[in-house]
Amino acid sequence: MSLEKVLNAESVAVIGASKVETKRGFQAIRTLLDEKFEGKIYPVNPKEKSILGLKCYKSVAEIEDPVDMALITTPAKTIPGVLKDCGKKGISGAVIIAGGFREIGKQGVELENEMVRTAAECGIRIIGPNTSGMMNLKSNLNLVGLRDAPKGNIALLSQSGNMALTLITEAKLKSLQGYSYYVGVGNEADIKFHEYLEFFRDDPETKAILMYVEGMRDGRKFLQEAYKTTLIKPVVLLKGGRSAAGKRSAGSHTGALAGISEVARTAFKRAGIIVIESSDELFPAAETLSSLPPIKNNHIAILADGGGHATIAADLLSDMGVKIPELDETTQKKLKKLLPEAASVRNPVDVAGGTDSDPTVFAECAEAILKDPNIGGLLLVGLFGGYGIRFAKSLALNEEDAAHRMGKMLKKRHKPIVVHSLYDSEKPHSLQLLRYYNIPVFGSLDVACKCIGVLAEYGNFLKSYHAKANFVYHWREKTETEGVNIIEKAKTEGRRALLETEAKSLLRLHDFPVLDDTLAVTADEAVRAAKRIGEPVALKIVSPDILHKSEAGGVKIRLSSEEDIRGAFDEIIENVKRYKPESDIKGVLVSPMAKKGLEFIVGTKIDDQFGPIILFGLGGVLVEILRDVSTRVLPISERSARKMIEDIKFYPLLNGYRGRPAYDKKALKNLLLLCSDLIESYPEINEMDLNPVILHEEGLEIVDARIIIGEEIKF
Amino acid sequence: MSLEKVLNAESVAVIGASKVETKRGFQAIRTLLDEKFEGKIYPVNPKEKSILGLKCYKSVAEIEDPVDMALITTPAKTIPGVLKDCGKKGISGAVIIAGGFREIGKQGVELENEMVRTAAECGIRIIGPNTSGMMNLKSNLNLVGLRDAPKGNIALLSQSGNMALTLITEAKLKSLQGYSYYVGVGNEADIKFHEYLEFFRDDPETKAILMYVEGMRDGRKFLQEAYKTTLIKPVVLLKGGRSAAGKRSAGSHTGALAGISEVARTAFKRAGIIVIESSDELFPAAETLSSLPPIKNNHIAILADGGGHATIAADLLSDMGVKIPELDETTQKKLKKLLPEAASVRNPVDVAGGTDSDPTVFAECAEAILKDPNIGGLLLVGLFGGYGIRFAKSLALNEEDAAHRMGKMLKKRHKPIVVHSLYDSEKPHSLQLLRYYNIPVFGSLDVACKCIGVLAEYGNFLKSYHAKANFVYHWREKTETEGVNIIEKAKTEGRRALLETEAKSLLRLHDFPVLDDTLAVTADEAVRAAKRIGEPVALKIVSPDILHKSEAGGVKIRLSSEEDIRGAFDEIIENVKRYKPESDIKGVLVSPMAKKGLEFIVGTKIDDQFGPIILFGLGGVLVEILRDVSTRVLPISERSARKMIEDIKFYPLLNGYRGRPAYDKKALKNLLLLCSDLIESYPEINEMDLNPVILHEEGLEIVDARIIIGEEIKF
Repeated sequence: MSLEKVLNAESVAVIGASKVETKRGFQAIRTLLDEKFEGKIYPVNPKEKSILGLKCYKSVAEIEDPVDMALITTPAKTIPGVLKDCGKKGISGAVIIAGGFREIGKQGVELENEMVRTAAECGIRIIGPNTSGMMNLKSNLNLVGLRDAPKGNIALLSQSGNMALTLITEAKLKSLQGYSYYVGVGNEADIKFHEYLEFFRDDPETKAILMYVEGMRDGRKFLQEAYKTTLIKPVVLLKGGRSAAGKRSAGSHTGALAGISEVARTAFKRAGIIVIESSDELFPAAETLSSLPPIKNNHIAILADGGGHATIAADLLSDMGVKIPELDETTQKKLKKLLPEAASVRNPVDVAGGTDSDPTVFAECAEAILKDPNIGGLLLVGLFGGYGIRFAKSLALNEEDAAHRMGKMLKKRHKPIVVHSLYDSEKPHSLQLLRYYNIPVFGSLDVACKCIGVLAEYGNFLKSYHAKANFVYHWREKTETEGVNIIEKAKTEGRRALLETEAKSLLRLHDFPVLDDTLAVTADEAVRAAKRIGEPVALKIVSPDILHKSEAGGVKIRLSSEEDIRGAFDEIIENVKRYKPESDIKGVLVSPMAKKGLEFIVGTKIDDQFGPIILFGLGGVLVEILRDVSTRVLPISERSARKMIEDIKFYPLLNGYRGRPAYDKKALKNLLLLCSDLIESYPEINEMDLNPVILHEEGLEIVDARIIIGEEIKF
Repeated sequence: MSLEKVLNAESVAVIGASKVETKRGFQAIRTLLDEKFEGKIYPVNPKEKSILGLKCYKSVAEIEDPVDMALITTPAKTIPGVLKDCGKKGISGAVIIAGGFREIGKQGVELENEMVRTAAECGIRIIGPNTSGMMNLKSNLNLVGLRDAPKGNIALLSQSGNMALTLITEAKLKSLQGYSYYVGVGNEADIKFHEYLEFFRDDPETKAILMYVEGMRDGRKFLQEAYKTTLIKPVVLLKGGRSAAGKRSAGSHTGALAGISEVARTAFKRAGIIVIESSDELFPAAETLSSLPPIKNNHIAILADGGGHATIAADLLSDMGVKIPELDETTQKKLKKLLPEAASVRNPVDVAGGTDSDPTVFAECAEAILKDPNIGGLLLVGLFGGYGIRFAKSLALNEEDAAHRMGKMLKKRHKPIVVHSLYDSEKPHSLQLLRYYNIPVFGSLDVACKCIGVLAEYGNFLKSYHAKANFVYHWREKTETEGVNIIEKAKTEGRRALLETEAKSLLRLHDFPVLDDTLAVTADEAVRAAKRIGEPVALKIVSPDILHKSEAGGVKIRLSSEEDIRGAFDEIIENVKRYKPESDIKGVLVSPMAKKGLEFIVGTKIDDQFGPIILFGLGGVLVEILRDVSTRVLPISERSARKMIEDIKFYPLLNGYRGRPAYDKKALKNLLLLCSDLIESYPEINEMDLNPVILHEEGLEIVDARIIIGEEIKF
């Protein structure tokens, strides 16, 4: 059901309306009146006749006209009953403020489930519970009690009321940008992050979406919607609750899963989301992205009136992977004409006093720089805005002139400008003028760098999005009947683990390069198989009852002579029978010894919030210590598979490090893609381990495979 | 020579004094007058009679009274001449503003050298050149032209004028703390960083030292002075010019070496310096450290009035390695009494609305928390200061009450409190009150976290400082005559590389566990040596003319029979003669094959800015890719040696990872200490490579050693 009537409600019933000033049921009505909500307000309280001059209804049923949504301020235990009343009235949405649900434990979970069931039966969509409320700033539908929130083009989704307050206050105090909507998602009991995202994607007034998240109820759907959204407008997100203490804190105040798994960060970025680590940068990044075009070529120029700021900015941008290329010769020549001899004109550009007597020189330098075809955006750092304060009052007028000129430049060239000013807190008029032209200004150098940085990051994403997976599954598209049979057989026999032979057969069906091995039921068969394969060979027990083959004495390697093979076969059978007498022995697997190569592990498993994910890393103990593994949410595209490989720290090893051979990266990439397809083809696969995988200069071999089946994945 | 007369000058001559308002020579005098410099001012300009009501002198010689220091505003080329005049007058110090020295290249370097020579001859100490000037805010000796700089207890050293301006402006706008001194070090031509540091260490008004550095002329001496300083007062430092673009920028505006080598960060931290990465945190960290006692036990509590801030703070502090332990039961009980049921009282503490009607509850919670014996400091985050703004005006008084109480708590308990407030920019009185009690308040959550974090970092340093090396060498304390002879012999023969046999002899003299090998001059000798050592053995050519032994065919390994050894000996000699006919062959080294173990490299070399350093890391290609090496400036203490080993990523491997054997860490630590001693004993050693070193479960073996000698190290 669309959220139209919920987030764009034209009438609202306040259930739990009150005359007591400290109560939420009073404050809500006062705020709606003070903020001049464009729709209708219906206070509901059986004990009152009127509140703040509005007629008060005994129940929602009494209200004469249709009502879009209800703000419910009554306690948790009353909610299911209240929802039934709302349902009868035909109300479409409810904001539920009360806490006392999922976040307090088992009892709360039950109440929340009951509430969600009731709401579904009544056709009501719920924001919250355990939320600070919601605001539609276009119609002044303010159900938060926070006044004078600045209006603008950013939609805000937050799992923390005080983070929302921070972000709204910051916009008000430090920017000309503001919000189109705010939603405190609360426990996400009914409406989930991805639904809000979808709504904001379609909202024409919303230019960017800003999120504070501590956990997600349906991460997979969120990714799918995020991917579609970021192609149209930027999404900026900060994720709290990474550390143990942070998780403890998150768990105590939201009903969400405490913290998000490590895979989230990569998945968010893959979906084009701008992931922010520092809370200082969160609003500024959204402000910048909502106001300016992305940088197309990852190249920026720094313009400074002093060395220290230029140096620090260059360091920070380099850390972010943004390029600060030397300016082309024409540009350098132009700058030389504009600036004194001591100036540095390569990039960073340091005006070396060249703006002291006339700050309009900044605009001239900016013009020259933005004309450079190789430069995608400009970061101005230092004292701009403060010349009129520090040197001579009249210079403030030159600064205003420069601000107008830079503003017009932005409109003409579509190359973004971001400004750092030491004098931002003094609020000089020239800086307000810049903001008027959508040029964001920051008092912090770090924040200004981050903001031009995210314009480059978003530009890089848009340039390459088409090569990326969209997190949507194509279930069973490549399923093979024989494969289904293998899985069905295991199910019928009540097994969750496929036999090694079954797992390998399934893989071979889908062209995985599995080591060429054969099941032998007798010693004779083993000898014949070894002849076919070529000695030396390895023998391994195959039995659903033996999980740890080596421990059971079920593995023998490097066998060459017929005698050795026969001996090993018999010994394995004996060992296993002794180890677990009732074992169902299917036979012994005869495999060639793998050629030497680089050892890898590849695996898939199910993540709570994001569904099936794939892992990949080098094998061996050194790598275990470093946890040098790259992970992705499935499915993956060719590009993601390549990036996964490039992400591991030991990547240079694959390229023929210092005269060593180069390995077959293409085979590795294909293997990752095959895994992605396999999971789509058989959603019953809950876990898969290919370990070891031996990579060669040409091709690779899967030596061992383990597949665990279970309930069908639904994401 | 002490800097007393320079930094605490009681009289100053302004050379290049002017009546032209835009000239530095005018501005300097006006600033000194406006700021009410307590000493005497002598304008010097042959063309003027008086400037701004002060008598103007034709030359310094004309001034009747003695003069402590000169501010020289004339161009670069005039400086040596001016200095001579100053010398004759007996002036002790000079601030040289002009650029055009080392930073412009070769010609500038020559002029700078001439200037330094002249100054030394005249007994004058120089600040700069290429500096924005200096300020002594105690006597109002303001030679910068920046007015109304806030006075206080922080001494500021900066290599960038605009970073200094940033830091001074920030103090003025956002804090009650200010500066005792500012020095723009400029090109560090004469007075170096470490001399300023020493001066500030002894200055009773200076409580903390704040530094912005892009490069250092004498890093080693700086470390030595820093080590002594940080035991007495904190030093906070940001290092610019890490990236290539940053170095380009730094190089273009300071005469310093562009950027500081990677070893600097660790060395600074070892010397107890608080190294800051983000320029937003630089002044706040100094403000905090200058105002509050360090945290003794690395344990802090977070007190919040909302979940989001608490969660983010917990994440950030965990990232810094600060512990956020659960509060003890008594404390939790007390908090439960103070707060509503929904509150979280473990840590982070979330008041859950418990302060809404009365913010003095914050003070009560703070009292309970700081009484907890396990808690060393408190971070208050959220809305404090804004209750009077957001909820009801009268609450502002409760907030002021709470501020007074927290201020007194600080004085009583000596446990620091740091405050984050969303309402900081609104400047409520309660927050100013906190500052009055030395409780720093920040509008940024990130910055507030960093600031309580640096109090813990500094506390950790002070607790452990006695176990650390002080960067002072004890030259030649453990020198052996025989060792001196080995080095002298190589010198006499004009060799920079010691022969492998010489290097190993030198190491053995100092009890390094070198593989037991013998030089054989004939095949017979080789066979006898192999008998003694026990086969299998390796043979390696020894010749000053052969650098790459394997390439020359000069290495044969795993030789067991007499025949093989003879054959290999002859073949090696032949190969080498063919490879380089004129080679001076000293013989063949007969070595046992090293036992299997973990392969390491240990090396020493000379760093431009910090002198001798030591490197240590695992051997092999994987490690090369990861650059998993830890480095330290020499000499190192036992603690540093241990920390070096713990620093490498593969450290867990040494402890017996997953049932593997544990290796002899003590032997490794001893080896690092032996290297440290050796470099002190023979300062002629410029470079040493022990590669490979094989580490065993017990002991280790040095298989190969290379030592390069050169000019004696002087640091």
